[in-house]
Amino acid sequence: MSNKTITAPKGFLAAGLHCGVKASGKPDLALLYCPDGARAAAMFTTNAIQSAAVILCRKLVQNTRTVHAVVVNSGNANACTGAKGLAAAKVMCAKVAKELTIDAEQVLLASTGIIGRQLPITKITAGIEKAAGLLSDSENAGLNFAKAIMTTDTRPKQAVRKVEIFGSSVTLAAATKGAGMIGPNMATTICIITTDAAISKPLLGKALKNAIGLSLNRLTVDGHQSTNDTAMILASGQAGNKTIKQQDSGYRRFARALADLCSDLARQMALDAEGATRMFKVEVKGAAKKEDALRAARAVADYDLVKCAVHGGDPNWGRIICAVGSSGIKLDPAMLSCRIGDVYVFRHGRPADFDAKEVSAIIRQKEHTITIDLGLGKYSDFCYGCDLSKDYVTINADYHT
Amino acid sequence: MSNKTITAPKGFLAAGLHCGVKASGKPDLALLYCPDGARAAAMFTTNAIQSAAVILCRKLVQNTRTVHAVVVNSGNANACTGAKGLAAAKVMCAKVAKELTIDAEQVLLASTGIIGRQLPITKITAGIEKAAGLLSDSENAGLNFAKAIMTTDTRPKQAVRKVEIFGSSVTLAAATKGAGMIGPNMATTICIITTDAAISKPLLGKALKNAIGLSLNRLTVDGHQSTNDTAMILASGQAGNKTIKQQDSGYRRFARALADLCSDLARQMALDAEGATRMFKVEVKGAAKKEDALRAARAVADYDLVKCAVHGGDPNWGRIICAVGSSGIKLDPAMLSCRIGDVYVFRHGRPADFDAKEVSAIIRQKEHTITIDLGLGKYSDFCYGCDLSKDYVTINADYHT
Repeated sequence: MSNKTITAPKGFLAAGLHCGVKASGKPDLALLYCPDGARAAAMFTTNAIQSAAVILCRKLVQNTRTVHAVVVNSGNANACTGAKGLAAAKVMCAKVAKELTIDAEQVLLASTGIIGRQLPITKITAGIEKAAGLLSDSENAGLNFAKAIMTTDTRPKQAVRKVEIFGSSVTLAAATKGAGMIGPNMATTICIITTDAAISKPLLGKALKNAIGLSLNRLTVDGHQSTNDTAMILASGQAGNKTIKQQDSGYRRFARALADLCSDLARQMALDAEGATRMFKVEVKGAAKKEDALRAARAVADYDLVKCAVHGGDPNWGRIICAVGSSGIKLDPAMLSCRIGDVYVFRHGRPADFDAKEVSAIIRQKEHTITIDLGLGKYSDFCYGCDLSKDYVTINADYHT
Repeated sequence: MSNKTITAPKGFLAAGLHCGVKASGKPDLALLYCPDGARAAAMFTTNAIQSAAVILCRKLVQNTRTVHAVVVNSGNANACTGAKGLAAAKVMCAKVAKELTIDAEQVLLASTGIIGRQLPITKITAGIEKAAGLLSDSENAGLNFAKAIMTTDTRPKQAVRKVEIFGSSVTLAAATKGAGMIGPNMATTICIITTDAAISKPLLGKALKNAIGLSLNRLTVDGHQSTNDTAMILASGQAGNKTIKQQDSGYRRFARALADLCSDLARQMALDAEGATRMFKVEVKGAAKKEDALRAARAVADYDLVKCAVHGGDPNWGRIICAVGSSGIKLDPAMLSCRIGDVYVFRHGRPADFDAKEVSAIIRQKEHTITIDLGLGKYSDFCYGCDLSKDYVTINADYHT
């Protein structure tokens, strides 16, 4: 396929531009339009402090049968902004509705950027007006959308998948953003997925939850959960497939393609995480309980000292074992083993002989896997992480001022 | 008082030297001797993976009525080293016992340093022999002890307090070390406290638990809990005070002095944390539950983005609120307020007007306080944290190799 952006599936037009929120002059307003409407499902942060967009969008996506547009601003999170912030979020939807002659209830929204500042709403409404005039199903328009949702990302993050469902070709596409404040509970930041599949709203939601659970929710950059995390999927139904209404082979094919798309996005986010130079996957096996496996995997992926060691290409496996030990799960030190890549560094509670240069070379790859075997049971799980570099500090020590 | 080291209380001799564990040639073996014996109490890491010294010392301190010596090695944690490591720990105690003509069961021990390497036991036993010959109650001997337990610390950490108990002058002193892998559950690393107070073993343990709870357990550098955390106190009983046997005014005076001593140590650790340039205290008030207050305080102090902002002198209070929101405690966004120093940055759910330069100057002090009022109840708690700098990454990306 040629178009690798969110305008690839049938039924979507997009635009992205600079409206004046970001002082840098970079794109900061993105608009998606589905003229014939779409079914939608979404997932949001579980942080107790939620942005105005999250509060509003959560209601909209529950109550609206058909969604016609999505508006996203970057550079300002519109979080911790009280009633004034919520009013501004409503103005955003109303302005989109007016420009596209639809109902405000049919417009979803998301915000990302600095927390605690009121939105420059006049700039944003002017931007919406301009964006409405630029809407197009071209690849370039899709790319502009992806660029306009970025914050500290160094590059746009997009992915496309095609899948055959009941004899029809279905397309899925997404634009997402990183790059910091990505925690394990809902590491979604802002992720907008489009598809032309015909699928019922409940199954769309189920497939989204499954896909995010195995991808963005398995990724941690700094263990931080933002106030604005939003992942949404819009299905235009224009692929011509028989509507997916039950969990049959068609649903499974769709769900697999969506999960694969989201894993691609998670990897892109890890590799472009703030200051990151490489990523790693932590696989925990042999856990006595399913939740133990995930808890241990997250503990290792979130451990600053492990992340620093990965940055230094340093096979300092003691920090991995220390992280597992402090995760609070059931374990027996004598049963514990750990591999970096295929090389055992710790086996059944004892240090293993290994070639430090060989293991360092494994760590220095773009991506490697740390495998921990608890030796206690049958459960396994995984998590993605990235290294911690000086650039993370540089980026975040002066973001505000 | 002149002597500001752990040999200040009556009844203690110390030594510290380089025995060859550290390639750098820096001191790595510390010995403390109490010729007439001491009562002892100790606290240990709650990490499920524990060093050989922790496993052994925990038993010793429970079973031994009188302690005569403490041996500490730095540069090697003797953790994740299996049965061989445990045997080496026992050899350390046996060697001290032989040199000082005491029982091996009367020797406590601790190790700190890299995880996963077997102890160079021959070097250590030779070092113990040498240290036994250097034991002295001089200030210099105490300083050598403090230096020999250091790892990435840039300076020794010591404190002394004097307190009048039932008409007698009692001295308390301590040597402790940082500087990384300091987590909230038992941020004690290796902390050796001496006192000449006469006090029962149960009350000594109670006073220690209270003091550590309000100091080292309220400090987080990186949220990491080590495999080796050990805090111990030895009371020689030579101050001549009437023995503290119940929770009377004598006990309270002793406990207060000990808590004050430990707070001093916690501050020293925060200010010399790996890469740290400044520290901060997080005070949470108005919590609905006591545990909510501590949980929120720790969440803020552990939040990398808050720590980066403190490093940059950046009044990015949105990250503080975000951290509180993701801590999992009960909260009402509309009731939430936050001050940096005395300046409100967020009040009752809304951004407050403030002078960014003024707040930046507050943050750039050696120490400042972040106050969060949840506005829900009567409970409060606190936590100490430090900034996250590029040097933390530099120190930890290449510690091993």
